[in-house]
Amino acid sequence: MRIVLDAMGSDKQPVPDVAGAVQAAREHGDTIILVGDEAIIKQELTKHNTASLNLEIVHASELVLMTDKPSDVLKGKPDSSMHVGMKLVKAGDADAFVTAGNTGAALAIAMLRGLGRIHGVKRPALGVTFPIAERPFLIDGGANADCKAENLLQFGIMGSLYVERVMGVSNPRVALLSNGEENGKGNSLVRESFELLAQSDLNFIGNIESKEFVAGQADVTVTDGFTGNVMMKTVEATARYIKNSLTHEIKSGVKTSVGGLLAKSAFERVSNKLNPDHVGGAPLLGV
Amino acid sequence: MRIVLDAMGSDKQPVPDVAGAVQAAREHGDTIILVGDEAIIKQELTKHNTASLNLEIVHASELVLMTDKPSDVLKGKPDSSMHVGMKLVKAGDADAFVTAGNTGAALAIAMLRGLGRIHGVKRPALGVTFPIAERPFLIDGGANADCKAENLLQFGIMGSLYVERVMGVSNPRVALLSNGEENGKGNSLVRESFELLAQSDLNFIGNIESKEFVAGQADVTVTDGFTGNVMMKTVEATARYIKNSLTHEIKSGVKTSVGGLLAKSAFERVSNKLNPDHVGGAPLLGV
Repeated sequence: MRIVLDAMGSDKQPVPDVAGAVQAAREHGDTIILVGDEAIIKQELTKHNTASLNLEIVHASELVLMTDKPSDVLKGKPDSSMHVGMKLVKAGDADAFVTAGNTGAALAIAMLRGLGRIHGVKRPALGVTFPIAERPFLIDGGANADCKAENLLQFGIMGSLYVERVMGVSNPRVALLSNGEENGKGNSLVRESFELLAQSDLNFIGNIESKEFVAGQADVTVTDGFTGNVMMKTVEATARYIKNSLTHEIKSGVKTSVGGLLAKSAFERVSNKLNPDHVGGAPLLGV
Repeated sequence: MRIVLDAMGSDKQPVPDVAGAVQAAREHGDTIILVGDEAIIKQELTKHNTASLNLEIVHASELVLMTDKPSDVLKGKPDSSMHVGMKLVKAGDADAFVTAGNTGAALAIAMLRGLGRIHGVKRPALGVTFPIAERPFLIDGGANADCKAENLLQFGIMGSLYVERVMGVSNPRVALLSNGEENGKGNSLVRESFELLAQSDLNFIGNIESKEFVAGQADVTVTDGFTGNVMMKTVEATARYIKNSLTHEIKSGVKTSVGGLLAKSAFERVSNKLNPDHVGGAPLLGV
């Protein structure tokens, strides 16, 4: 595989981006094409042992900032690392594009300047694997704030294909996120989507609530990008709240502090489980 | 105050309902009117010391089950404890109605058979106080799965009045739940509601995300009942997941088990903080 990596994507670019490229090239043997400012990338690569690794550099003179609006990036930064990187994929010079950068900009460039949509797909969507033991997979995690039922049906199809082909789950169970499990629960979007999903060839198991999602009762859970994004951020915010509260309460007394030290490895295991860094990136499906 | 309590509301009725009535009458001195099967209530009251408490009983021959559909309850159970209880409020014989029962049925009876809506209110909504240190207040927690922008504006007005009058917060900060803080983020409902809230007399502070909500950066957070209900259930599900994971990891070794015992009081304080039983019920505002 030839994978393009946006060297200018992360908040602390190019340090983690280049380190990731080196690690990926070493562990998987794939060719990693770093896109961005050539001089900066070359300088950063001198910190690593890159002997015998398949690393290439393609120069791009501009970079997309986290604060850039997608529309401005589309018009104003034609030589950004995102534009250049996705063009490599479009031209057949690479198989995939990876970025840690601005999601909205990546989505806009992918659809309108780079990869385009897969034939028949109306809206590409973000697939998100939650950092929970059962690794529940949600689609859409935030690409489309406003959706129609046919979009949710397509999210179910794309998500089902992804977890089957990429994650190796056979006959994935597809569910619809709702505010109640019974058929007929939900808002109008959920009720309409339920009908479409039920009539599809997917292994549709019906509505699920957050607790079933967390428990991994579905392999793919479908929702609109607004609800999905709020849900993802709510899990993160709740986990951080509990971690901070526990740390505070444990440090509030001598006995609990000693207990906290003894139980530290248990805390770390739970904390690591909930670390989004351990589940990899979110695929933009449909482009 | 004269408060009607549905003695047939909870899953284990009438035991916790009657116990709650006795406790409320003792602690606050208010008159509690227990509505439900008179014989059963009288029998249950013999377990308590009710001397000098202001407790009354009003008979209702039917009860609403958690599995009852709101429409069926409206038509089929005219002598349910919910119907009878709300009629007492409507007739001026009591000031408020409290139930631990079926939310959908309570909403339907309140609007269509009992209390009706306050003049001008298009949709009553559930106000929910989250069991988090800062006690963030969300409206709507699940009464209206489909909303328009004018509904969200009214939720903001009702929520603001409630936290000001009942919870004693002066000039409450009202925020709109969104998938990004910047003005312009959100789905179409959020963007339209933003305009209405910004033009209102409320102390509107703009969009907030889950992490600001959890941190208590707003006194009232407005959202539609679908998103609000999913968010509420996601906080619960995440907290339960973390609690179970921690318990499991702590019990997995001797050292961590000892640590867990020593830190037990800290765990309990965090667990208690997150217990919905400690923040009271959810007011149905607008009826």
